[in-house]
Amino acid sequence: MGQNVSPERKKLVVFLGPAGSGKTTLVGSYGKWLEKEMNVKVSYVNLDPGAEVLFYSPDFDIRELFTIRDIMVKEKLGPNGAFIRGMDLMLQMKKEILDSIKKIEGDYILVDTPGQMELFVFRETGPELLSALRYVGYVVGVLLFDPVMASSPPSLVAMKLLSLVVQLRLGIDNVLILNKIDAVKNSDVLRLVEDYESLKEALAFDSKGLVSDMASSLIDVVEEYTPASRLVKISALKKAGFEELYDILHEVFCTCGDLT
Amino acid sequence: MGQNVSPERKKLVVFLGPAGSGKTTLVGSYGKWLEKEMNVKVSYVNLDPGAEVLFYSPDFDIRELFTIRDIMVKEKLGPNGAFIRGMDLMLQMKKEILDSIKKIEGDYILVDTPGQMELFVFRETGPELLSALRYVGYVVGVLLFDPVMASSPPSLVAMKLLSLVVQLRLGIDNVLILNKIDAVKNSDVLRLVEDYESLKEALAFDSKGLVSDMASSLIDVVEEYTPASRLVKISALKKAGFEELYDILHEVFCTCGDLT
Repeated sequence: MGQNVSPERKKLVVFLGPAGSGKTTLVGSYGKWLEKEMNVKVSYVNLDPGAEVLFYSPDFDIRELFTIRDIMVKEKLGPNGAFIRGMDLMLQMKKEILDSIKKIEGDYILVDTPGQMELFVFRETGPELLSALRYVGYVVGVLLFDPVMASSPPSLVAMKLLSLVVQLRLGIDNVLILNKIDAVKNSDVLRLVEDYESLKEALAFDSKGLVSDMASSLIDVVEEYTPASRLVKISALKKAGFEELYDILHEVFCTCGDLT
Repeated sequence: MGQNVSPERKKLVVFLGPAGSGKTTLVGSYGKWLEKEMNVKVSYVNLDPGAEVLFYSPDFDIRELFTIRDIMVKEKLGPNGAFIRGMDLMLQMKKEILDSIKKIEGDYILVDTPGQMELFVFRETGPELLSALRYVGYVVGVLLFDPVMASSPPSLVAMKLLSLVVQLRLGIDNVLILNKIDAVKNSDVLRLVEDYESLKEALAFDSKGLVSDMASSLIDVVEEYTPASRLVKISALKKAGFEELYDILHEVFCTCGDLT
């Protein structure tokens, strides 16, 4: 009963990740690669009102509506308060934002999200916007982490779990990316990212008792429901891993097609 | 082989939670309650360089070393960059911060953390600071969420998972709190927070196929390793749930004592 991905429907790739994980750089770098190497028409959306410099030319930019700096000055808010106010404003302007995104042409629309992921994911803004974006086209998330999250076996489990948290909150499939792979110091840890058995052994060695047991059980669930192939190692700097990301995104978009 | 909590050792309660979850308000309100109702000597630490107003009088305040506003002006950084720079600075100043905290007296030291949890938890700053704080006293986390995370069954699972993510990253036990309980609109969802069987039924109804199955399996693991009693419903505004929080913290501190 599957349905192929209609070539006319837009493909939206939403880049998510904690502060400093490299979303904006990857959006620019991956977009240019798609255009040049894959001959795909790419458009760009910036939903980060706190961004200062973008590495791409946005077809829609939330900063045309407001910026965090403006809010700090005009509403006399501190940086924490301004970010929260920014998310509330984005939710209020949902219709305007969606109407603008609907008008954008292109096979792929790359969507950059707020610097602090939690503001978007754990408040109402992200879930509501992404839910509405599903009427614009196929939506897939790309969830970025940097090597700090690959610093120890328990952190690797934390990273995998966080991708499930994001999936449960936003209701979209996401591809897990370890970015800045060129900056990884301990390459042994990288092996663990994809080898669940070794990861479980490492957990038993690294942590004690309950924590190790719990992490092992969680890994079993993760292993059952999210194929290991979904983790892509990327270097936005060296354009490494881009083809793999393209293939996996294509595969996920096909599955979306199957489900609709 | 258990060891009782030494009354001389300090008890550090670290308040964590996403932006807007109400950390600072709760630190102030819970601290006053502890002093007044429990007759406990309470001290306060602020580790949020982006805070503007505190509802308590800090014994150590990171803003004496630097603020996010200062960084934005002096280093000409945007708000996103300033927050990341702030976390790096905090890590560099680790020794100075720890020395100051060591000098603080009090049975309970309540520690307020950066507005955006991910900056603290998913970078190196939080794990390294908390690891060092263990030499100062017993450390327990209090992880706050607001009712937005209780808006649907999948979000409830996401909230539970996130508490495991924090535990794996920071290496400390944490008590999960649903704050602003007075603002919950759908009280049916509240029942699900503690009743795993009903939560699983609701998941099957709310989500489809794989997502529901995965969430159910995850809930089984959570149920096995984290007692349901660990979730406390709080209203900082109405000082509701404070006694339960006190009892659970006491219990967790005793377990810390057992483990050391």
